[in-house]
Amino acid sequence: PGWERQGDKIVKTFKHKNFRRALAFVVEIGVLAEKVNHHPDISIHGWNQVTLSLTTHSAGGLTDKDFQLARRIEELSG
Amino acid sequence: PGWERQGDKIVKTFKHKNFRRALAFVVEIGVLAEKVNHHPDISIHGWNQVTLSLTTHSAGGLTDKDFQLARRIEELSG
Repeated sequence: PGWERQGDKIVKTFKHKNFRRALAFVVEIGVLAEKVNHHPDISIHGWNQVTLSLTTHSAGGLTDKDFQLARRIEELSG
Repeated sequence: PGWERQGDKIVKTFKHKNFRRALAFVVEIGVLAEKVNHHPDISIHGWNQVTLSLTTHSAGGLTDKDFQLARRIEELSG
């Protein structure tokens, strides 16, 4: 929920209380990404917002890996 | 050096050995940003690249704070 399809990607922006929280969220996602060996594009912007963009480069588009990772990110942020 | 002016921002992309290194670099920058209370936009993309974008929103453009932070980021990455 909250993920938006943009071309061959799914994208979502998470708003945090402050920069520190945004950074901590990015680290959590980074650790998860390494664990599942699937790496989203991650952008911290506007001080407290984190935008994630998921696609499977090797497949040239969206795959189950993206939707699974999105689900796990939701669990992290929930 | 390596910073490019884009409108009212200065921007630079740092390429790392892998995602883990890119993430560690982002954490270092995040800690530095909190310390000096000046927060760049940070993007991790293409698995191992980190793009930083600096401007001073409160001033509506570039200030000394941006160039100082850029210098300190250079020291980190050096």
